[in-house]
Amino acid sequence: MRLRLVIAYDGGGFKGWQSQAGGGTVQDHLEAAFATLCGERVVVHGAGRTDAGVHALGQCAHVEVNRDIDWITALNGNLPRTIRVVRCTRAPADFHARFSAKGKIYTYRIWNGPILSPFELGRAWHLAGPLGMELMRHAAQALEGRHDFQAFAASRGKPEKDTTRTISRVAIHKKGPLITLRFQGNGFLYKMVRLMTGALVRTGQGRAPVESIGTYLAGGAGKCSFAAPADGLYLTRVLY
Amino acid sequence: MRLRLVIAYDGGGFKGWQSQAGGGTVQDHLEAAFATLCGERVVVHGAGRTDAGVHALGQCAHVEVNRDIDWITALNGNLPRTIRVVRCTRAPADFHARFSAKGKIYTYRIWNGPILSPFELGRAWHLAGPLGMELMRHAAQALEGRHDFQAFAASRGKPEKDTTRTISRVAIHKKGPLITLRFQGNGFLYKMVRLMTGALVRTGQGRAPVESIGTYLAGGAGKCSFAAPADGLYLTRVLY
Repeated sequence: MRLRLVIAYDGGGFKGWQSQAGGGTVQDHLEAAFATLCGERVVVHGAGRTDAGVHALGQCAHVEVNRDIDWITALNGNLPRTIRVVRCTRAPADFHARFSAKGKIYTYRIWNGPILSPFELGRAWHLAGPLGMELMRHAAQALEGRHDFQAFAASRGKPEKDTTRTISRVAIHKKGPLITLRFQGNGFLYKMVRLMTGALVRTGQGRAPVESIGTYLAGGAGKCSFAAPADGLYLTRVLY
Repeated sequence: MRLRLVIAYDGGGFKGWQSQAGGGTVQDHLEAAFATLCGERVVVHGAGRTDAGVHALGQCAHVEVNRDIDWITALNGNLPRTIRVVRCTRAPADFHARFSAKGKIYTYRIWNGPILSPFELGRAWHLAGPLGMELMRHAAQALEGRHDFQAFAASRGKPEKDTTRTISRVAIHKKGPLITLRFQGNGFLYKMVRLMTGALVRTGQGRAPVESIGTYLAGGAGKCSFAAPADGLYLTRVLY
């Protein structure tokens, strides 16, 4: 039977999502837990890769298993406590965590104050100087809609054939020193959220004009090279 | 000159506040930073000890120094990033972090849901089963006021002469799975907040009647022995 998992993890202690030779990734830990419980190799198909240090509140994955047990309890009992399976439901045989996804929500957290709270270490990007919220909100509007996001994509192996994506909404909230950027879209290119965040922060700092976002999108400024650090990024939800 | 410091720390990595032979406490780290900056031993007098694993958002301390520099920046540059000096002001010569304190606020965080969020690890007490909020709030009322809190004190060396304290307010809030207990009082005995939290949780779990708190206070039930774990406790503020 096919299972659909929703997984939360603190990315700080892992080498990203995707399985690699040396192990130590979230996928490696999940596959090891399934191997223990199933007595055979089970491939965990994630909705998307997250880089080292990137967190997840709602990463999704699917697996094919032969047993019907209390998977949440069994898996969490065999995982580091910084990875938690928070939901596990049966999925149709044709459900695919990556290909069935209609979109994703990422959240980026910025701690905008002189001193980073000890409780935000590794969980937010610390920016001490002033950040213009209205400048950032204004700049973010340019990202919404269907665009070629090539300027906001880092390369990872072979380049994407189609770099057009639709960002349905960028919402920016501030509560005390904590600024939250919430990106919802039908898909995201490699490092796209961190590059968009980097570009928005530069407008908020007054180091780039609000129009710079549009210039990037129109292909008039090459590749954006200001990626926000992994620490502040959260894969919040995968939409199906 | 005398300085008054406000300090935040993630207690997870430290052996409590109070300096000890082997080092590794928050006070040890602060005194090492002062020694580096002053070229001599400086004693850091804290408002109160916190145990290993207990956190602080607003621990207070005073020191006597001979230099007038940007202490916040200098100290934070010489401290682990899980200890932050968040405020530093000049204090009158007779200010004493402990003896001048008029009261304290402690917060205790409980994660009341089936699965502990990876982001709450070491930062909240995980209680999966049902907890009656109204039972806990009702029981908490008995703690408010001036009482002999001997039943809610653990021993640490010589016993306190006077175990009478005044708790001005216990406020209990719930937001999603997160329950926050906020205790304000003129002083707290050793482990008193953790023991009060333990007793309140037992009433919320239906394992002890609401009246049990009053029985403890009246000396009719011996010592309370259910201490909530250090993970969830935060010294939130010292009142002067």
